[in-house]
Amino acid sequence: MVNPIAPHGYCCHCGKPNTQGIPDGDNRPRLMCHACGSIHYENPKNVVGCLLEWRGNILLCKRGIEPRYGYWTLPAGFMENGESTRDGAAREAYEEATATCEDLKLFGVYNLPRISQVYVMFYGRLSEGYAKANEETLDVRLFDEKDIPWDELAFPVVTEALTRYCERHTERVHQVQLADIYSRPGEPLKIVRHT
Amino acid sequence: MVNPIAPHGYCCHCGKPNTQGIPDGDNRPRLMCHACGSIHYENPKNVVGCLLEWRGNILLCKRGIEPRYGYWTLPAGFMENGESTRDGAAREAYEEATATCEDLKLFGVYNLPRISQVYVMFYGRLSEGYAKANEETLDVRLFDEKDIPWDELAFPVVTEALTRYCERHTERVHQVQLADIYSRPGEPLKIVRHT
Repeated sequence: MVNPIAPHGYCCHCGKPNTQGIPDGDNRPRLMCHACGSIHYENPKNVVGCLLEWRGNILLCKRGIEPRYGYWTLPAGFMENGESTRDGAAREAYEEATATCEDLKLFGVYNLPRISQVYVMFYGRLSEGYAKANEETLDVRLFDEKDIPWDELAFPVVTEALTRYCERHTERVHQVQLADIYSRPGEPLKIVRHT
Repeated sequence: MVNPIAPHGYCCHCGKPNTQGIPDGDNRPRLMCHACGSIHYENPKNVVGCLLEWRGNILLCKRGIEPRYGYWTLPAGFMENGESTRDGAAREAYEEATATCEDLKLFGVYNLPRISQVYVMFYGRLSEGYAKANEETLDVRLFDEKDIPWDELAFPVVTEALTRYCERHTERVHQVQLADIYSRPGEPLKIVRHT
């Protein structure tokens, strides 16, 4: 719903309506405020999360919130200001699965340009094999590779990370992964793997 | 400078003053608008850039803008909405050094939690060895490892990436790097290397 008085919203610094235009020295349209001179840049957001293993099984969480309520996912969520990607991944594991991580290593970087998100995923050991559902999560479970519920996964990026996790075991490849994922409801999924 | 009427700024959706508080189901303070119910999340920003090589030499740019005007840096800048980290790194190489990249691979992820930035750096070949200064850049130059101007580098993250680049050559290590960099003017630099 577009506000006809302020179709580009309001300046968060002075409260006057924004306009849209290309600032001097820039090459793309930005939200700008002519009243106070602010330029409001919009940038991609990072999602940080992890693949946690315990005795060869992988931890998945059944989502207790929308979107994709009831589908299985890896513990992951938006990175917060003031933390590192690795600390954020550990925080999300605790918040979504009451899980403590050990020996977290970089697993993969997955770009989702259509929704301006970057997933930075880690893998490590689930401390003492302990996890527990909470407010955001209906259930947590450790899955053997052959039991991963491929048809009930929440997001294409989760499917891709788990696919690479399984390949990695088979092929003994330990390279950090980089892939671009183009998904949109009703359109064919496109994944470009760089490594 | 804090505005006494709106110390937390204004809602970008409706233009009313924001307040600060912890939303239901959340665990940390956010900027919120009681007039329209919006919650304004603030998240880290990604900087994407690259180490470009040509015949064993590495491309550096002499900054033509503040901060650190006149110091040497790797081509890098804020990631834009709608692009991948890799495409963003290639775009920055062109914008800052008129450089075209070939065969870009993930080089390292550097967290800067104190300023809520994540550097995602790539390395590859500088196409035809060609680069040229432009509005943002005073000079571009290809440096042999032994000639890198260590005392004239713009930022600790540039120093760290180039240090690892040099080690990588010496030790033949081709692992993607992950490090946390804690720097603040007047305080000792602290770097935690995870890989």
